[in-house]
Amino acid sequence: MNAHSGNRSVGIVEPRSVRFDEPLALACGRDLPGFELVYETYGELNPRRSNAILICHALSGHHHAAGYHSEDDKKPGWWDECIGPGKPIDTTRFFVVSLNNIGGCHGSTGPSSINPLTGEVWGPDFPSLRARDWVNSQARLADYLGIDCWAAVIGGSLGGMQAMRWSLEYPDRIRHCIVIAAAMKLSAQNLAFNEVARQAILSDPAFADGHYLERGTLPARGLALARMVGHITYLSDHAMASKFGRDLRSGSFEQGNEEDVEFQVQSYLRYQGNQFSGSFDANTYMLMTRALDYFDLAREYDNDPVKAFRHAQCSFLVISFSTDWRFSPARSREIVNALIAADRPVTYAEIEADEGHDAFLLPIPRYMDVFSAYMRRVGVED
Amino acid sequence: MNAHSGNRSVGIVEPRSVRFDEPLALACGRDLPGFELVYETYGELNPRRSNAILICHALSGHHHAAGYHSEDDKKPGWWDECIGPGKPIDTTRFFVVSLNNIGGCHGSTGPSSINPLTGEVWGPDFPSLRARDWVNSQARLADYLGIDCWAAVIGGSLGGMQAMRWSLEYPDRIRHCIVIAAAMKLSAQNLAFNEVARQAILSDPAFADGHYLERGTLPARGLALARMVGHITYLSDHAMASKFGRDLRSGSFEQGNEEDVEFQVQSYLRYQGNQFSGSFDANTYMLMTRALDYFDLAREYDNDPVKAFRHAQCSFLVISFSTDWRFSPARSREIVNALIAADRPVTYAEIEADEGHDAFLLPIPRYMDVFSAYMRRVGVED
Repeated sequence: MNAHSGNRSVGIVEPRSVRFDEPLALACGRDLPGFELVYETYGELNPRRSNAILICHALSGHHHAAGYHSEDDKKPGWWDECIGPGKPIDTTRFFVVSLNNIGGCHGSTGPSSINPLTGEVWGPDFPSLRARDWVNSQARLADYLGIDCWAAVIGGSLGGMQAMRWSLEYPDRIRHCIVIAAAMKLSAQNLAFNEVARQAILSDPAFADGHYLERGTLPARGLALARMVGHITYLSDHAMASKFGRDLRSGSFEQGNEEDVEFQVQSYLRYQGNQFSGSFDANTYMLMTRALDYFDLAREYDNDPVKAFRHAQCSFLVISFSTDWRFSPARSREIVNALIAADRPVTYAEIEADEGHDAFLLPIPRYMDVFSAYMRRVGVED
Repeated sequence: MNAHSGNRSVGIVEPRSVRFDEPLALACGRDLPGFELVYETYGELNPRRSNAILICHALSGHHHAAGYHSEDDKKPGWWDECIGPGKPIDTTRFFVVSLNNIGGCHGSTGPSSINPLTGEVWGPDFPSLRARDWVNSQARLADYLGIDCWAAVIGGSLGGMQAMRWSLEYPDRIRHCIVIAAAMKLSAQNLAFNEVARQAILSDPAFADGHYLERGTLPARGLALARMVGHITYLSDHAMASKFGRDLRSGSFEQGNEEDVEFQVQSYLRYQGNQFSGSFDANTYMLMTRALDYFDLAREYDNDPVKAFRHAQCSFLVISFSTDWRFSPARSREIVNALIAADRPVTYAEIEADEGHDAFLLPIPRYMDVFSAYMRRVGVED
């Protein structure tokens, strides 16, 4: 038994990929002329195909949500805390599907892929996407896997927005919708932070209006800056204070030593920014933040979320975190209030947590308990 | 009577300038070899020289705090709401002094000035500054104007930090200290936002490590980005929501029109960023944000603010604003608690206001009332 196959890990997993040749009609009015999806699965699909769970990823997520890719792999998938035997999304009961969305940069068709119509890299010409496009492409994957109806569609942040969109677009293909640390639309402040992030990328000369792959340049500084801005919004003031305070990494405030003063939080942010810019695609970041900006659950329902949710037929679990200031508990309560007014079954938990928006990725005991308890009620034989 | 000489305006004002030839020993250990200060005054100094008020400016402020520079001037000074006949800082009673700090970019000696030792522009070689250096240079100005003791030293944000530093460094030269929307030190989150702002400037190739003046370039994009980040932190989520919501400036979410979608808040932020980058100096921005980062009221007092404030002899007014998340009411209450523990007279008001940090610049009725009431108690004949 190796380090990566403990009792509560899904162990070594392997990404798969599937190609869809039929064009996908997008919300922007354009067609995506066929596309590839990279995905992973954990657990076994039962004979009645009634135990399938779809994981929708957030801004910088991907298909690798749980387990390890090799024995040497140092870090598990991004939501390993929640997916595995005995974890909230229990792989001894459920068949879990996690994919990289179209527009992404981890293997599914996106801006770094070749546009079959031109033979060139899509780059900035990749079509603009909305959450509904992801939902439609995920429905194709469900068809391919023979899943008529998801036991649950689950997502945090932008992933929660996709889960809500599933409940409206395919009401008969989803039995439970689990929306964590999300909102029905972005606030002006959310839009503002995304704008700064995009401007940081656009301002980097190496971005070259998105044609950096052809030019052989990489907008690493712009993307790092964008990530730094984002990262601040993922952490609470309190989390930053307890993680770093005003600790110095170098220099001191003694006379003459000030030139080298660097706070821990500064070097941490720069590190995070640089790590990210080495592993993420700038055009994908532009596209994903725009999809976030454009998401507005009720736009096509006369801007009335109650009217929107009347189309849903599933049950809902909504979870928020007390110090999340990106999508605060107030935003989750808006979702809950609309669901109640639309007479939909909904369970809501506001979790006390110091970690801000990032809390949705962490094994906070009450969060795990609430999530697990709800998931135990998600039947797989009906 | 013209538009700029209403009952409550100080009318047309003229900046003056004074040169100090004696070097100023700085906290960093270096000397500033003589310096120039640009300042304005409003009202009349009384014969006993007991009615002088010092205004300390914040990050992007300057000497022009009230009145107009010409008949054609469209905008008054930055704190015109608070300075003038019948306003909280009543120029029929007080002699108000407002200066541009050293390191600034509005006429006082700063990174854009010539270093007399080299005959070249200081640029990034301008010495690192701390709030205490500003206080010491302001004391020189007081000497020059024949002001032994300020009736009050007043500042918002970074200006409030200078006011507090005055109370510790020159306890016998200040009778009232008025600290608005400030903090005793920056939080990790505050530091993080400043770091992103500086990285935005550093990332702009036109910044050229601060040598842009010699190169004839201007890091306009970097500075605009830095300002955009800052601007988000000056406004509350609520203020942004009521000012812009999710209103579109162009485009629509109809199929095919999405390429042009731009939210009002995006274009507003870009406009603010561009305006700022046309009128502010990047090296000054770097220097000012570092001074903010380094400010720590109690560092030299065993990190004990109570011990620090025991050195003060003046009375304090502390004001905070309910939706200010840059320097929240909790940060002001820390100041108040330390003052109480140090047995110093303090008045505290938390003003309900939707406008966030920027509220300190606005004529919010209860703010004006509290501020005016306190200032009426500031004697000028004692």
